[in-house]
Amino acid sequence: EEVAKLLELKAKLGTDDGKHKFVLKTPKGTRDYNPKQMAIRERVFNTIINCFKRHGAETIDTPVFELKETLTGKYGEDSKLIYDLKDQGGELLSLRYDLTVPFARYLAMNKITNIKRYHIAKVYRRDNPAMTKGRYREFYQCDFDIAGQYDPMIPDAECLKIVHEILSELELGDFSIKVNDRRILDGMFAVCGVPDSKFRTICSSVDKLDKTPWEEVKNEMVGEKGLAPEAADLIGEYVQNNGGLDLIERLLKDPKLSQSKQALEGLNDMKIMFEYLQLFGVTDKISFDLSLARGLDYYTGVIYEAVLIQNQAESQQQNNHTEESVSVGSVAGGGRYDGLVGMFDPKGRKVPCVGVSIGIERIFSIMEQKAEASEAKIRTTETQVLVAAAQKKLLEERMKLIAELWNAGIKAEMLYKKNPKLLNQLQYCEEAGIPLVAIIGEQELKDGVVKLRVVSTREEVNVARPNLVEEIQKRTSQF
Amino acid sequence: EEVAKLLELKAKLGTDDGKHKFVLKTPKGTRDYNPKQMAIRERVFNTIINCFKRHGAETIDTPVFELKETLTGKYGEDSKLIYDLKDQGGELLSLRYDLTVPFARYLAMNKITNIKRYHIAKVYRRDNPAMTKGRYREFYQCDFDIAGQYDPMIPDAECLKIVHEILSELELGDFSIKVNDRRILDGMFAVCGVPDSKFRTICSSVDKLDKTPWEEVKNEMVGEKGLAPEAADLIGEYVQNNGGLDLIERLLKDPKLSQSKQALEGLNDMKIMFEYLQLFGVTDKISFDLSLARGLDYYTGVIYEAVLIQNQAESQQQNNHTEESVSVGSVAGGGRYDGLVGMFDPKGRKVPCVGVSIGIERIFSIMEQKAEASEAKIRTTETQVLVAAAQKKLLEERMKLIAELWNAGIKAEMLYKKNPKLLNQLQYCEEAGIPLVAIIGEQELKDGVVKLRVVSTREEVNVARPNLVEEIQKRTSQF
Repeated sequence: EEVAKLLELKAKLGTDDGKHKFVLKTPKGTRDYNPKQMAIRERVFNTIINCFKRHGAETIDTPVFELKETLTGKYGEDSKLIYDLKDQGGELLSLRYDLTVPFARYLAMNKITNIKRYHIAKVYRRDNPAMTKGRYREFYQCDFDIAGQYDPMIPDAECLKIVHEILSELELGDFSIKVNDRRILDGMFAVCGVPDSKFRTICSSVDKLDKTPWEEVKNEMVGEKGLAPEAADLIGEYVQNNGGLDLIERLLKDPKLSQSKQALEGLNDMKIMFEYLQLFGVTDKISFDLSLARGLDYYTGVIYEAVLIQNQAESQQQNNHTEESVSVGSVAGGGRYDGLVGMFDPKGRKVPCVGVSIGIERIFSIMEQKAEASEAKIRTTETQVLVAAAQKKLLEERMKLIAELWNAGIKAEMLYKKNPKLLNQLQYCEEAGIPLVAIIGEQELKDGVVKLRVVSTREEVNVARPNLVEEIQKRTSQF
Repeated sequence: EEVAKLLELKAKLGTDDGKHKFVLKTPKGTRDYNPKQMAIRERVFNTIINCFKRHGAETIDTPVFELKETLTGKYGEDSKLIYDLKDQGGELLSLRYDLTVPFARYLAMNKITNIKRYHIAKVYRRDNPAMTKGRYREFYQCDFDIAGQYDPMIPDAECLKIVHEILSELELGDFSIKVNDRRILDGMFAVCGVPDSKFRTICSSVDKLDKTPWEEVKNEMVGEKGLAPEAADLIGEYVQNNGGLDLIERLLKDPKLSQSKQALEGLNDMKIMFEYLQLFGVTDKISFDLSLARGLDYYTGVIYEAVLIQNQAESQQQNNHTEESVSVGSVAGGGRYDGLVGMFDPKGRKVPCVGVSIGIERIFSIMEQKAEASEAKIRTTETQVLVAAAQKKLLEERMKLIAELWNAGIKAEMLYKKNPKLLNQLQYCEEAGIPLVAIIGEQELKDGVVKLRVVSTREEVNVARPNLVEEIQKRTSQF
């Protein structure tokens, strides 16, 4: 019965709609940011940019689209998610899929061999959006990368220190950073008997272990991808390991794994990195995890991913079945990619790089939910004073006064009405959170003063016009 | 002979190239921003954002692409310059052409009837790029708009005040803001005998008058567009007028023009606006100019455009033939568009809007040229201190110290080498403009101090480790 009513209602609305045929929406997987969301976004960006600058980074920018061929062959199976532009004559173009490939193109094009840079910009993926979880088709990436030939693992450790600093400062709750190395993964596949040709596809199966139980992943490896069951079982034993220096030491002595030169290189570098991480004081949140794979083709060394941990109490509120703490998804990731720049250089000259990308959209989602829950009022303007009139016919006088204030650098507004009521002007201040009102009336004009009212306390004081700017500055310096 | 040599060289290079077939470039009409350009860009943005905030604006953001139909029918002849995305299944999408249409879509979609907002973002036009002049296919727009039903011309005058403030603060040299009104233009066309159906196309001819002499524009009107020569001559008499309140008064009494109700409305509003502009103290740079047309379809009232004036001396340096001062192109433009939001509202509800867009790319170009000419060194990082070692085998100690500094909020770097030479560390500071070096050696570690060196004066002082953070903050607070 309810359904029938709804259907009827829908049909009625449908006929009214005929006038305008277009759909009023943003494209699938995208969203607008309203002023409140922008205020939150700017706060998060400031925290992140401050951290990047604290580590001495410069910044660059690149176009939103690249030549299609620039992106070709860099993302493996994910290439199907690239947005192409229509061929309207001229070059074939695609929207950038991340900031890493444009960065590598930039380095090769400008023959730069050393740089520490951050880049904050939107990237585009034709993925299945899950917007409530912060998964969009247009989303920001905040990347920090160190390019250059340096002594091993020093820049790599700094990238992890940066993730640790940012996630701590944003106060998103507990987090954990998983670390692994492409060379250890490849070496593990080799000693477990995975044929070379299957490395990448088995790697992408392993990558699912954060969301999928081992049995299912094994079925995919054996059933879909044709891996021998014994090889899968061997992999299974390794990928269920995680720990710190102790695990690294154990694996360095592992009779099978230590037969792989690649794995040994990876393990030795991992050991150096963990020593550096101890000096940076961040090992509390970092674990060496053999199940971390990360899909992108271009990684060549250490890889990492940060996840937020939902604590037991929170998670039980949402889901009574869960008993342990559960990860709520990746908020940062990165790794070393020593070959990518060389792919762009005409002579194949390599520039070793390591970097990290902060997954800012999930962080925005969490911050927005927090802001809503806390019901704290977020100001979306910085206006210090409203220029108001106590009587009619004072538009011209308001205009003269506000121009004086603007020219002195004061943030000021006035209502765009010839004769606004004083009450409406005061109400506007309450709603917008404007702390002061500069009121003029016939008497004030005669006396050469302005009545300055403090919105929160309703206190009023006459200020001589030449002192007004200074008085406003004094009273709003704490805001 | 020279040419032959060059051709030979080119052929030689050509054969080396074969290995990598791709072209290493950004798409036509786009560019990367290097760290120096970013530093300039941020300075310009800060000036503009400060001005927008001084006038009480909030900010929003919208996706880089919109549904194709959202953009359809908004830009008249310029629609051919819109970038479409390839149909990869799903919705048909186009890159935004400006920030105004997405703003109108945002207002209608969220049923917002009042807002004062700014939006700084990139827009896309498949135009003929002239990159040396700052004309790109991907470029920033900085828009400020006031939406809402208000008393006439108050928000319009504020928009012009904002242009005046921004162009003055950026110190780009002299400028002039031309103002006109769509209703005056349309009224003028009507009384001159232009048929209704030709209004838009004749309007776009008039729009060329800033670059093209009247005779050529007349030929286009009569020859290409089939306007009667007498009508063109009448237009010619009007469009060569510009001035202030005096011209408005004269035209209000003009026997022909005053027959148009539309033109009278426009002229009366223009008069009100000029009175407000006098109160704001900005009429020195503003002139009512009947030749200003602006191409976009959506304008309904006042329109304006700001141009920089090259003074005689500068212009003579570049071109000996020019004798008068000459305008070097538009740096801001805007106007009133009262019908655009209604085009998106299912019930056609109108939200009157007026706004301005700052053409930031031309401004970047000018600032970059200035920066190059002045040879002043632009810092691209904010690093306060380099953590350096005086002897070998101190990597671990440097790491511990730099982590202390980072955790205290100090902007610090270290070289990514195990055993860097002191000289190299000091040189790095000179190049990057880092003002301080925190040097540790065996002796300093033993004494519990750090040697703090001022790069510019070479002065060195031992600081007890617990006081180091405070000392660095004290010494870099002026930077």
